[in-house]
Amino acid sequence: MLSTTSRTTLGREKQRGSTDRTDLYEVLDTGLFCHLGVVVDGYPMVVPTGYGRIGETLYLHGSTGARSLRAGDGTEVCVTVTHVDGIVLARSVFHHSVNYRSAIVYGRARLVTDEEERLAGLRALTEQLAPGQWDHARPPSRKELAATAVLALSLEEASVKIRRGGPSDEPEDYALPVWAGVLPLETSWGAPLPDPVLPEGIDVPVHISGRR
Amino acid sequence: MLSTTSRTTLGREKQRGSTDRTDLYEVLDTGLFCHLGVVVDGYPMVVPTGYGRIGETLYLHGSTGARSLRAGDGTEVCVTVTHVDGIVLARSVFHHSVNYRSAIVYGRARLVTDEEERLAGLRALTEQLAPGQWDHARPPSRKELAATAVLALSLEEASVKIRRGGPSDEPEDYALPVWAGVLPLETSWGAPLPDPVLPEGIDVPVHISGRR
Repeated sequence: MLSTTSRTTLGREKQRGSTDRTDLYEVLDTGLFCHLGVVVDGYPMVVPTGYGRIGETLYLHGSTGARSLRAGDGTEVCVTVTHVDGIVLARSVFHHSVNYRSAIVYGRARLVTDEEERLAGLRALTEQLAPGQWDHARPPSRKELAATAVLALSLEEASVKIRRGGPSDEPEDYALPVWAGVLPLETSWGAPLPDPVLPEGIDVPVHISGRR
Repeated sequence: MLSTTSRTTLGREKQRGSTDRTDLYEVLDTGLFCHLGVVVDGYPMVVPTGYGRIGETLYLHGSTGARSLRAGDGTEVCVTVTHVDGIVLARSVFHHSVNYRSAIVYGRARLVTDEEERLAGLRALTEQLAPGQWDHARPPSRKELAATAVLALSLEEASVKIRRGGPSDEPEDYALPVWAGVLPLETSWGAPLPDPVLPEGIDVPVHISGRR
């Protein structure tokens, strides 16, 4: 049913590594949470946490007491950001797959001590989760800043994997009467839910209600 | 503005650990991808991958040549599954947060060699990503099975963290004229996209088109 050429074409759409830094930035900049991996007492530990990017640096933060961040200071970490875009339904069980975009960053995390960089990193972190809020909400106090650890991670050692497109089945399976394709997974922002104790008359800002 | 009691109530809604195994199962069973953490040459490595659950066991799989899975065989792994449910918009930058549900499983992965358990594990993995497809698509061949490594991980050592509800602001900040609440993040399945080379007359099965 399929010529060699169209199989080759499907093959190129399969899970692939990308060396394009634009892809790296896109995967990172459109994410909300990363998974931070550290080694604690010889064991792997993977925790979900926020992050932000400025140029070639990722910023992570947490309580100064957090175990994962203490382990991360000056030691090797791995930060992974993954978007799941759809489920790839093949004619055979074996060729089922997932369309996803994933960035993996390896490196030695650096505890940020310079106050200006700490503020810039926290701003990037806040804006990643909630664009427009850094200038909208009350700025951090000296006490709040002191309670927050900020880590920096260079994007020097990073890889991106992207899988797009339909299934890549075995040649003989294309004759099977089995539906094949992609079931897309879509994410969207719901209607903002006001804090129950919010006073009357405070409207939802456009940067929240209009978020895309 | 807020009494101590209502602050206590908000406090209880904050990020919290759960020891309820029902919560653990719910977080795992509604996920698509996990993040698998392993230690390779002393460094942490975090990769997104599929998984499935049968009772008190998680199953992972991959190519028999995959570096992350080779490292996982018999060694300590960490498997984390995270759902992001919304962004918590507070009156202060510092109290911004994320509503999420996360499960972290620690343990020594076991390479599954028993053929019956391997098949059961692969079935759980497939059904997690694509419910109904194990019995619908062509079953794995002997050769395909041989190319697939299946790992088992006990759920004995697992933790669940769930954050729900609105922001928990500083008492004095409740007087600020700043909108506060939650911006929900919603995920949904899009319309199934048929493989471009799918012949006419093969309808989308209900277990795919009706997926919730």
